[in-house]
Formats: sequence, C-alpha cells, structure tokens
Amino acid sequence: MLNFTRTAPMGWNSWDCWGAAVTEDTVKKNADFIAQNLKQYGWEYVVVDIQWYEPTAENHEYHPFAELSMDGHSRLIPAENRFPSSADGKGFTALADYIHSLGLKFGIHIMRGIPRQAVHRNTTIADSDKTARMIAKTDSICKWNTDMYGVDTTKDGAKAYYDSIFKLYAEWGVDFIKCDDIARELPECEEELKMISEAVNNCGREMVLSLSPGPAPLEKAEFFKQVSNMWRITDDFWDKWELLYGMFERAEKWSVHTGAGHWPDADMLPVGAILQDYGPDGKTKFTEEEQKTMITLWSIFRSPLFIGGDLTKCDDITLKLLTNSKILAMHRNSRDSHQVWRREINGVEHILWKANNIDGGIYVAIFNVGEADSKIEINLRDLEIPAGQSCTELWSGLKAPINEKISVRLAPHGAKVFKLINN
Amino acid sequence: MLNFTRTAPMGWNSWDCWGAAVTEDTVKKNADFIAQNLKQYGWEYVVVDIQWYEPTAENHEYHPFAELSMDGHSRLIPAENRFPSSADGKGFTALADYIHSLGLKFGIHIMRGIPRQAVHRNTTIADSDKTARMIAKTDSICKWNTDMYGVDTTKDGAKAYYDSIFKLYAEWGVDFIKCDDIARELPECEEELKMISEAVNNCGREMVLSLSPGPAPLEKAEFFKQVSNMWRITDDFWDKWELLYGMFERAEKWSVHTGAGHWPDADMLPVGAILQDYGPDGKTKFTEEEQKTMITLWSIFRSPLFIGGDLTKCDDITLKLLTNSKILAMHRNSRDSHQVWRREINGVEHILWKANNIDGGIYVAIFNVGEADSKIEINLRDLEIPAGQSCTELWSGLKAPINEKISVRLAPHGAKVFKLINN
Amino acid sequence: MLNFTRTAPMGWNSWDCWGAAVTEDTVKKNADFIAQNLKQYGWEYVVVDIQWYEPTAENHEYHPFAELSMDGHSRLIPAENRFPSSADGKGFTALADYIHSLGLKFGIHIMRGIPRQAVHRNTTIADSDKTARMIAKTDSICKWNTDMYGVDTTKDGAKAYYDSIFKLYAEWGVDFIKCDDIARELPECEEELKMISEAVNNCGREMVLSLSPGPAPLEKAEFFKQVSNMWRITDDFWDKWELLYGMFERAEKWSVHTGAGHWPDADMLPVGAILQDYGPDGKTKFTEEEQKTMITLWSIFRSPLFIGGDLTKCDDITLKLLTNSKILAMHRNSRDSHQVWRREINGVEHILWKANNIDGGIYVAIFNVGEADSKIEINLRDLEIPAGQSCTELWSGLKAPINEKISVRLAPHGAKVFKLINN
Amino acid sequence: MLNFTRTAPMGWNSWDCWGAAVTEDTVKKNADFIAQNLKQYGWEYVVVDIQWYEPTAENHEYHPFAELSMDGHSRLIPAENRFPSSADGKGFTALADYIHSLGLKFGIHIMRGIPRQAVHRNTTIADSDKTARMIAKTDSICKWNTDMYGVDTTKDGAKAYYDSIFKLYAEWGVDFIKCDDIARELPECEEELKMISEAVNNCGREMVLSLSPGPAPLEKAEFFKQVSNMWRITDDFWDKWELLYGMFERAEKWSVHTGAGHWPDADMLPVGAILQDYGPDGKTKFTEEEQKTMITLWSIFRSPLFIGGDLTKCDDITLKLLTNSKILAMHRNSRDSHQVWRREINGVEHILWKANNIDGGIYVAIFNVGEADSKIEINLRDLEIPAGQSCTELWSGLKAPINEKISVRLAPHGAKVFKLINN
Repeated sequence: MLNFTRTAPMGWNSWDCWGAAVTEDTVKKNADFIAQNLKQYGWEYVVVDIQWYEPTAENHEYHPFAELSMDGHSRLIPAENRFPSSADGKGFTALADYIHSLGLKFGIHIMRGIPRQAVHRNTTIADSDKTARMIAKTDSICKWNTDMYGVDTTKDGAKAYYDSIFKLYAEWGVDFIKCDDIARELPECEEELKMISEAVNNCGREMVLSLSPGPAPLEKAEFFKQVSNMWRITDDFWDKWELLYGMFERAEKWSVHTGAGHWPDADMLPVGAILQDYGPDGKTKFTEEEQKTMITLWSIFRSPLFIGGDLTKCDDITLKLLTNSKILAMHRNSRDSHQVWRREINGVEHILWKANNIDGGIYVAIFNVGEADSKIEINLRDLEIPAGQSCTELWSGLKAPINEKISVRLAPHGAKVFKLINN
Repeated sequence: MLNFTRTAPMGWNSWDCWGAAVTEDTVKKNADFIAQNLKQYGWEYVVVDIQWYEPTAENHEYHPFAELSMDGHSRLIPAENRFPSSADGKGFTALADYIHSLGLKFGIHIMRGIPRQAVHRNTTIADSDKTARMIAKTDSICKWNTDMYGVDTTKDGAKAYYDSIFKLYAEWGVDFIKCDDIARELPECEEELKMISEAVNNCGREMVLSLSPGPAPLEKAEFFKQVSNMWRITDDFWDKWELLYGMFERAEKWSVHTGAGHWPDADMLPVGAILQDYGPDGKTKFTEEEQKTMITLWSIFRSPLFIGGDLTKCDDITLKLLTNSKILAMHRNSRDSHQVWRREINGVEHILWKANNIDGGIYVAIFNVGEADSKIEINLRDLEIPAGQSCTELWSGLKAPINEKISVRLAPHGAKVFKLINN
Repeated sequence: MLNFTRTAPMGWNSWDCWGAAVTEDTVKKNADFIAQNLKQYGWEYVVVDIQWYEPTAENHEYHPFAELSMDGHSRLIPAENRFPSSADGKGFTALADYIHSLGLKFGIHIMRGIPRQAVHRNTTIADSDKTARMIAKTDSICKWNTDMYGVDTTKDGAKAYYDSIFKLYAEWGVDFIKCDDIARELPECEEELKMISEAVNNCGREMVLSLSPGPAPLEKAEFFKQVSNMWRITDDFWDKWELLYGMFERAEKWSVHTGAGHWPDADMLPVGAILQDYGPDGKTKFTEEEQKTMITLWSIFRSPLFIGGDLTKCDDITLKLLTNSKILAMHRNSRDSHQVWRREINGVEHILWKANNIDGGIYVAIFNVGEADSKIEINLRDLEIPAGQSCTELWSGLKAPINEKISVRLAPHGAKVFKLINN
Repeated sequence: MLNFTRTAPMGWNSWDCWGAAVTEDTVKKNADFIAQNLKQYGWEYVVVDIQWYEPTAENHEYHPFAELSMDGHSRLIPAENRFPSSADGKGFTALADYIHSLGLKFGIHIMRGIPRQAVHRNTTIADSDKTARMIAKTDSICKWNTDMYGVDTTKDGAKAYYDSIFKLYAEWGVDFIKCDDIARELPECEEELKMISEAVNNCGREMVLSLSPGPAPLEKAEFFKQVSNMWRITDDFWDKWELLYGMFERAEKWSVHTGAGHWPDADMLPVGAILQDYGPDGKTKFTEEEQKTMITLWSIFRSPLFIGGDLTKCDDITLKLLTNSKILAMHRNSRDSHQVWRREINGVEHILWKANNIDGGIYVAIFNVGEADSKIEINLRDLEIPAGQSCTELWSGLKAPINEKISVRLAPHGAKVFKLINN
C-alpha cells in the first residue's frame, strides 16, 4: 500500500449523526468548524459516509433495493437532491474543492462491489467491453445492505470496473476511501480487497484506504498492513461503557500491528452532540471521565481518530477534550505502545499501558475499568523505567511527585496518563 | 403436512440428463415410455426440474442474472421457446394434461423465494397491494443460483405471494413440487418453509412437497416430517461409488424417520443412459452389481425412487433392474427398516439391513462394500429371526437352503437381499 | 463376544442402596426375595457392585488410596469382614453357590485395571514371570476412584493378568461381570476392553460382560456389540424426572443397536425402597406414573432391567410394577423397536414408540413428557399399521376400542402402551 | 511473586545432555566451566534437572513406579549414589555450597505434587498431623511420569506439605526452582500453582520460580506474571529447524508479557556438545547460522537463556556465540520488544523484530526463515525510526552504512541484528 499516512489519520465522519442521510450543507458546516477550531491540532479528513448515492435516504436505516444514482457506466454518483453541487455529472468535485480550500482533505465511503441495479440492468463498464452482469460474483452480497453485488476478480472486466471508479474518485479530488463490507469478510473477500488496493494505488491520486466493518480477523493482520492504511478492529462503536470496556482487549491484541502507514482502527469517537440510540439529537452518553478514558486509549494505542459528533453543536468541554496538545502529541509521536498488565487491585480492575515518545519520554496510562474509586501505586522499577524522571499528568497538566512510585487516584471508568522524562 | 403419500413416491426427473435445459418434447417422450413400460410397477411422477422459466438455459450450468419468463405478478412461467404449449399464458396446463392423460402425475421444480428481477423491477403480487421489493429478504440468496431472493415471512405480502404461486400451480394441474435451496438451509429458512408448506396445503390440490438440496440436518427430522413429504438427505447423487458408499451411513441415521407420508430422500437413481461428468450422453458408470446395491439400499430404506436416466434410450438391463416386482414390493410394504450391523468380515466390510413385510415376511439385505469377493454366513438367531423359514433371494429369485444360517457369496460392491417366510 | 444373552438380562444390583458397602447378608436376603417373588418373571442376576474388596467401605463415597483385600498375585478378593464366607481364600465361591442354589445367577463388579497397591508393592502376576509394575499403564487412572491403574496391553504380562482374574472368577462361579471405568473411556481404553473381552470369552465359563459407566460414545456402537453384552448409555440414573426425560433421546439414538446378545443399557431402575440423595433409606421419588413410564421405555427399548431397590422392603405397588407379564413379554419378545415421533400436541410434548412382537402383534407406546394432562388420538394409518386390529393396554389390561384411531388420555409424565393384534 | 529477577535469568541446565541421570560430578564440572568462562557475561544459574531422587535413572527415559529417595516426611531427597555429598540427610547442601563458592547460583527441578509412594505408604507430613494420603488429589497425575500425585489444596495438610518442601530447599541453599507438570496444566492446576508460589515466597530465601512444561496457555499470561518468574511457552525445544521456526510465532504472541520479574521462556539452547535424538554424545544439529538466529530471537525477545550443552566439551565457536557482549546487552537492556512484520520478500519469508535499549539505541533484528539466500532493504521510515542514525551489526561488529535504508544479505535460516544510535 502507498504509505504516506505516517501518523494515524484524524478527522470527522458523518455516520454517527446522520447515518445514510447526510447532506452537502451539513458536511460543509462541519468542515468549516474543523477549519476554524481543530485543524491546527491535526484534525484533517472530512468524510461523507454511506449511501451518498441514495436519494431517499432518511436516517440510519437503509431502504432495501432502493433506486440509486448511477452514471452510464455502472458507477454510483452523488444524489443530486442531497448534494446539489453534483448536478450535471460533476460528482463530488465542487464539495472536494470546498474542503480543500479550507486546508482540509475530503473522504467518501463506498461499498465493496458493483450496484445490483447495474447487474440486473446489465449496464456497461467504462473503458471496457464487458458489462456489470459479467463481473458480479453470484453468491456475494452484503448481509446488511442491498446496494451491491461483490465483484468476481477472476472475470474479465473486474479490474476495469474497479480502476474506473477510483479514477472517477481521483478526478473528483477524493483523498480518503472508507471501503465497507470488506474488513471482516476475509478470507472470502481477500482477492477483491487486493484488487481494490491496487486500483487505489494506481488511480493517480494519494488516497487513504480505510476498511470496514470490524472486527477484522486478527490472523490477517499482516495482510491488512500490506493492502490498506487502516482497518476496523471492532463493530460499530457507540457511547456505551460495555463497548469501551471491550475495546481494551481488542487494542491489546492489535497493538503490535500499529505503525507508520498501517493503523488498526477503534472507530469513531462518539463525543459531543451525537445521535443516541438512533433517536433525537442529544449529547453523548459517555461521562467526561469515560471520554478521557476513550481518548487516552485511542491515543496511546494510536488508533485513527475520527469525530462522530455534530461539530456545529460542539460545546467547550468537548472542544477541550479534542484539543489537548499533550494527548495528541502522544497520539502522533508514541512508539511501541502496548498493554503492560491488567489486574484486580483491591477488588477493582485496572489496566496499564506504556509507550515511548520519540523524544525519549515514556508514557504510562493507567485505567480504572471497575466500578469503585481507587488509589494505586505504580512501581516504576516493575515497568522497567529508570529512576530519576520528572512526571506530568497529561489531562490535568500537573507535575506528579515521584520517587520510585507514582500514586494515582482514579474514579470508576477513569484514566490518567503520565509522561515521564529523564532529568 | 397433507399425508397422502402412503408409500414413497416413484417417478422420473429431468435433472440428471438435461440439467436446466429440458424441453416439453423430451418430457413427453420420457412420460410415454413410463406409461408403456413402468407405470404398472408403480412409477408415477414425471418431474420437470430447475429453470423451466429460463429461455436461454443450455445445460447444467446456470446463466447468472439471466432474464426469466415471468407473468405480471412476479410469478415465473415456462419459457415459451422450450415449452411451446405454455404460450398465451397457459403455463404448464397442457403438459400436465398430457401427463395426466397417460395415467401419470406431473411435477415441477421451484426455487425458494421471489425472482430478483421482480424485486429490482418492483413488480406486483397477485391479490395483494404489496410489491416484490417489500417482501424480499435482504440477506437471503441462494449460494449457487441467482434467480431469487428469499421471502421475509414477517412482511405483509409474503403469504399472499406464496399463496399466489401455488394457486397458479394448482390451476396448471401440478401434483408434485420439488422446492430447492431450502432443505439444508435450516434453521435460517425454517419460517419460509412453514409458509410454503401451508401454502401447498391450502392451494386446493393435492401436491407432494419434496425438499432439496441435501444434506438436510438430521436434528430437524421431526420438523421435516411435519412440513413436507420427502427431503433430501444428501447433496446431488451421481454414479460414483464413493457417493453410494457414503449413502449407507446417511440411510442408517435417517431410517427411523421413514414412514407413511414422510420420506428421507436419497436422490435420483443414475441408471441407464445418463450424462456423465456433465459431458456427452452415455451410460451410467455404475456396474450392474453397484446398481443392484443402490436399488436394494434405496428400497429397503424406502427412499423415494426417481429415475435420472433418459428413458428413451433405456436398455433391457436397466429396465429389468427397475421392474423387479419383489424388490418393489419390499420398497412398498416393508416396515421398521434399519441397519443391523456394519463390520469387517475376513477383511472385507459388510453391512446388513433388516426389515419386515406387512405380510409377516422378513427381509435381510447384505452388502459387500469392500473391494474383494466374500463368502459369509448369516446366523438367523443373531438377527432374532425365528427358525423354520423359507428363503428367497430377490434379485435372482432363487430359493436359498437354510437351517440356522444363510450362506452368501458376494462380489465387491454387490448385494443380495432375502425374504424369509415362516413355513 | 459369546452371544448367549438372547434376551436383555434382568436382575438386581446392590449399588443404588448400598454403594460400595454391601454385605453378604444383604445380598443373600435380596436373592431370597427374588427367588420367591420375581424369578418366575425372568429376574435372574444378583450383582454385587463396586469395592467388595474394600474392608472399610461405608457408603457411596470411596476412601482414597484405601488398603484393599488382595491375594498374592495382585488379584482383589472379597473383604472378609463384609463377606465372611470368603475366608481362607475361598473368594465368592460360597456366595455364588448359594445364589445358584436358588436358581439364580451371580454377578460382580470390577474396575478396569490392576490395583495401584499391587503396582507400588510390585507384586507378582499369576502364571507369569512379570510383575504388576511392568504392566501398569503409567498415565491411565480412573477419574473418580483410586483403586486401579489401567493395564498397558502392549506389555508382556498384561494378558496373563487379565486371564488370571477371569480364571479366578470362573472358579468362584461368577456369571456376570460389570466392568467399570471403561464404557465412556473409549477410544483410550479400546485395546484394554478387547483384552478383557477375550479373557472373558476364554475363561471357561459363560459370563455376561456389562460395561460402565455411561454415556458410551454412540459412534462406537458396532464395537460395543462385538466385545460386550451390554453397555451403559447414560451416567448413573437416579429417581429424578430430568434424568428420565433425558433417557428418551438416548434410547432413540441407540435403539437400532439393540438385539440378541448386545443391549444398550439405560441403568438400574430406582424403584421401591431406595436411597435418596445418598441419605437415609426411603422410597423412590418417582411417582407411580413415572415408574410406569420408565418401565415402559426400558421394556420397549429392551434395555437390560436391573432393580436398584432394597427388595426386602418391597411393597405391593412396586412388586406389581415389576411383575406385569404383558410388559415383560414386550421386553422379551419385541423387535425393531424405535421412536416414531416426538412432537408437541396441544402444547404438551409427546413421544411415540413402536415395536413388533414375534407373534405378529404390534406395540405402540405413547408418553406424555409434558406438564399437563392430555388427550390425543393416534392414527394407525400414520403408523403404517393395518386396519382391523384388536387392542389391549398393557398396564391396565383393558381392551381399547379402535377403528382407525386410538384415543388416549395421559397424565403428565405418564405412559400407555398398547398391543395390537390382527383379528 | 517476589520480583527480584530484573533481567531474564541465564544459566545452565542438565536436562538436554543427561536427562534424568545427571550426577554431582558432572554438575560441578559444568559449574567450574561457567565460573571460569561465562560468569562474567551474566551466566549464573546451575540447575539440576528432573529425578535427582531416582537412584536407578539412566537416561531420558523414566522408570515407571521406581523407588525414590525420600525422607521420613514424604519429601524427596537426592539419590545418594548419584549425589554422594547428600549422604547422612544433608540433601543438596554441599553441592549448593560448592556452586555458591564459585559465585554462581544453584537450582533444582521438582515435580508438582507429593510422591505416590508416600501416598501409598501413607507417610507423614512435616510439622503437621496429616499424612500423604489425606492431601493427594485423587484424579491428578502427570501424564508422562509416575513419581507424584497432585496435591488437593482444599485439604488440611496441603499447605503444610508445600511449605515443608520449600523450607527444606531453602535450608539446602537452593536459588532456583524449576517446577514441572504445571505450566500447561492450567486451569486444572491453578490453585496448586498459587499454593506453590506462596510457599516459595514464604520460604525465607529468594528463589526464582520457573514453570514447565509448555506450551503455557496464553490466556493465562497475567496469572503467570503474578505467580512465577518464568514459564515455558513451548514444549521441549531441540536442535531442529521446525522447532526454531515455530518459536517465532510463540515469541510474537508472548512478547508483550515480557518484563521485569516475569519472563516467557523459550527453553534451553541446544548448543555445543549435546545429545542428539537421545543418542550418543555429539554436536548440535543446528548450523552456526541457525544458532545465531536462535540466540538473536531469544535475546531480543528476552527469553531466559539456559545452556543445554555439555560445557566440558565446549568448543570455541560455541563459546563465542555465548559470549557476544553486544547481544547479551540487548538481552539485558532492551525494552518493548516486538515483531514488526512477517512477510514474503521475493519469495522468501522474512521476519523483523524491533526493540529499544534503555540508552536510547534501537535494535532491529531481521531473520531469513526461508530456504534461499536473500537481499532485502529495510526502510527506517517504515519502522518509525528517525533518520540520522549510526548503525552496527551485532554479530559481525561491522558498521553499516545507512541513509534511509539498511541493505541486508541473509543466508537461509540466518539473522542479522542492528543497533541504531542517534548521532
């Protein structure tokens, strides 16, 4: 895979709040906010999620077998009623230009495969004498959406089709592809994923290739590293403690596979104003402590960071959580991150992670994942950290007094993270 | 299930020789042969197998996403180029009439579900205000054929659709339905199967409901007995010894579930002139010994018996195998059939089955499933058969001398079957 | 296996009431009762269960690593304090003689293997220059009793040991061996079981070989039939409805393997005065209905029948249950027994079994295994039973009026069983 | 666990060469060699492996049920014929003193449990009124050795027994316990392991607790870290490429669990003069390349390092492999070791590991685990290593020229390992 994502991508994605129904106007407003408030902290990608080609999409539910906006060559195009600038076959060009003009990057979601309606109408494939019906994989469908058939990579025309869509996206100015119905479908979709990866590499424009949905199979880690830039390690993540609790184990297992250009992805951050239970707008159900825990874990693990909330309603607390420079420096510059232990201390389960900064500093994150307040001591010698360190807690910015031990008080579901520097 | 199949159905099916491409003319010629030569032995059903609605079908391969013949209400109808008498919307009426005029019964194959082309065109459902798109089950497809989507039984219109197709078949005069893509798809398709079963029961005409493909899951035996008349216990059966050898274990496991109205089905008999390896016409690859073994097992197990060969090319040997009155009496009148043992004797594997005739006679079938000639002795006392019996071997018609033991010589892959009668 | 058990063995066993601690006096008293009251109905074997060689045994609990009574050749012998007639090395000779004098047969329980104390003391093996230590299988122990090590059949001396113990038992006059820690230990113990089976066959006296504990693995059915006369299909069976309910499925699966000389064994009947929960003496917790259900199932399935109760306290109801001639004729003379169906009828689960009598009669047993009274109709045609039968219910002795159907009322956990005879 | 093993233990073990039969003289000679040649490089522990209490032990095979040397309190003691200094109940005191006098540490192997002979003789437990029979776990034996029964930790006397043996070992001067039949026996032996761990902690002398055999279950990693200092992640390791090849995957999975005081153990190094195939003495079958690969992997993974060879026959090449200061510094001072990738390059499988030195240096180890020579380039940026490094290959000592890439030539089964230091 082209390997230009030297740090884990950061940005915003429309799914959590608008499901299949986001509009051009909403995307632009969120992009405006990012440009004004978040860009300087590294937040960069603005991603339009699923079914931008479905004119009647209303929310997170899909309309089975809906008519989709499609060009004459079996390629889906933006629904004009939702993305007015796409009129006259211009696709996402104008929206991408707008995003780029803000100094940001533009991403879109796609489903693996070729539209079923193209297959049943037997429409043509660009720059090819083959048709959609000839390349569809007959037994390959998405289990939760009826838009596409899989593509049979052994068929003539398959490569032409995939090349043709990424060429179109390159023309539009797309910088990021979130390809869905693929990451957890290995090994069945392995050949199709390879073909997609090569088409992205060859399309003439640098694009991040992000894979969904999770959980991706761990035993395919090396393969994911070679064909993509990021891949989901979890099913959709929402603002529920059980899901956050479960992410610790996923992160532990995937941590050795994180590095330049290849990022196991813990999914969007449901922070700020987000849809709850697919219901009316509201605030994240995570407490502030839980949000710190989440951001700490995502950052020390170096997951991609994508905001799921509606930024036009972003409050000060949320903004502060997303713009902690020290935390984001850990996300950017840490190395060799891994869980050190997970154990009950005085009846409360705790988890400890460690990472190194390229500046020689050492990060120690400690999580209380139990249901009671706790006070614990961390023995630096047990962590193989040399004595004689200064120590700052990153969320509070406070210097911690240390000798050989750090004393930490934690609320339930809470986290603290220290940076230790040699004097 | 309506329970009128007091003995296991017997007949002929077009699949083995013509795949998806049988024509009206061929069906009639085979029916003629049955009426003249086989009817008096109990052979009765003439079944048109898969894709009679596909105008371009050529052989055993399916054309992905082919255009299908369909009426205005999402119902498939015979391809007029292959079944000329179906012109002008008459469906199979004329062909069924012809078969009935020969004193035979008429059957057709269907795929579970509703045509994908109906769903994508969103055509109507007869006697309903719903459309095809509303009742398709979005994640339910056949793994090996692209004609249909499954039907979501929780949706309004689902029952109306299934009622409408069986009403049409009843109008045509159909006596036998072989419903495919369903028997081994339990438990996923359990509700859909129940809906089909009820629709058959309520269509106003007695129809045998036969389920494919196998292997049906054994743990659902009781369910199959209640919703169908026969169901496949094996994947497609062809003229290969390994498949015949494997059928012994399947028959052993299913034997207790055989009885009036519910028949585990060991699939068609590839006898006489049949397609080999999907290639040019030829003879079955089974030896005569193997064919006797097959017919003996199918008959003592009381599987449905359907001929797979082209009867217009039926030779004398084949005809003789299919018209042994004693064997067919066992098929019709035996009860309590079961395997008694399976063991190596002098290094050769043998299998012994036992059944009772309602006339008080006892059947003992002995199979040499090894690769060497054998001579074995069967001790009647070990089989709990009282002394003082007369004994006839059914294939040869010879009386066997017995005291307490029957001596049997068997060729490899060979079988003998005895009827013992109290003096 | 020597094949003289033409009907499934019947008798009494000491385990349910006395655990590891039965005494000679108790055995004789129970034998006396059998001779006087049960012998004429076919009850025949009197079996001394586990640890007759353990002087300190008190109840159903074993004493780990207890000192065992053993002869000079590594063979266990009766504990003299519990079996006084065994003094002076006479073993079970006198007790066997006594049982024989009553016209009954004598059985003992053994554990697979060689005593651990023999191995650690390295004592000799009779008629061999090998010692116990040389033949013990180093990794083979019973999981629930510390008496023995398994025997390594690949070692010289192994056959000599097993021959020597059965030779001793033959000298004592033993007619029945219940060999424990073996039936569910296949395939690990397969070779040891073969060696035991051959030693029994060659010991010079006819002995039934019965295997424990269950559940024996179904896939080894054919093997069990060849090396033993009966084998347990269940773990220890007690007077609890859940266990009785569970036996229906076990019996269904094993029914095809029942026949002359080889009997899947549903374990002792906890009837009459039995130990409850290993506590003080008392009555069976089964209701009379449940006991009829149990005896009906055991009898139509043709399980061996062994009484677990203390016969010296046998009451009239129990005696009547054990001496129903019609039921016991079904146990003795039925053939081809199998479950026909198992289904809910009006919300109550029912099970139906069918079998044939060698006199031409047909048995139909119907069980209500639910929790409500029920009234159901049995359609004879569905059971493939010819019309024109007379019909007697075996427990009540009442003639049932039939046309094409039998009407049956059943209490929860209740059973009725009919014999139908052609007029 | 007492946590004094700040670096992974290093030493020598008698098993590979002498199996169950090592003698005092041999141990002393090997210790002498270590003191003279290896001590200054960190090699420290001298470990007497299994069955030092078995007077008749001859080689790697165990004598089933052999008589063991035991004191009056159910505790095994050295076989006097093999360890003459243990005469008069002195145990290992004199041998430990000798080892200590060389500046080295002394270790012994034990089997989990209590001697079977103690149980069958029912001998006493020191400082307790209980006996061996009372604490043996009745269903707990080692699958490959007959010396012991497991101890039932729920029984009174169990703790007293374990305390008594470690108290004895402390008196002898033991510094290291290799406890066998336990690491892969979790979860069954979890309670017994806890009891052993506590007894070691409370015995009054610092002892490393090492667990065997492997593979230890990965899901118990956190538990092992808390109750022991090292535990085997593999079954016995010998000089076969397949085993070395397989260790890469084991090391990858366990790497995050390595740290101060808790060391996943890849087993002894079969280097120099070792027994091959349990046959006559000879040289390791590993090539020099393979030995470097092995030592590189063990060292960057920070496995404990124990020499399996007969040091009295140590040749120069072997000595050089064991005394490379740079490699041993990596073993001692690296942190955060983990596999970075494993992939085919030009058809040859390669594996890359990375670790950090506490001095700020970065280790990169690259292995050719295929069957052909290879030449590859390592892009430092892909490894997230900053530019501007100097680079030394540790086995050759050569400086490597680097810009952004390191070029490496590797023989099949070969390894190179670089230390990169910021200029």
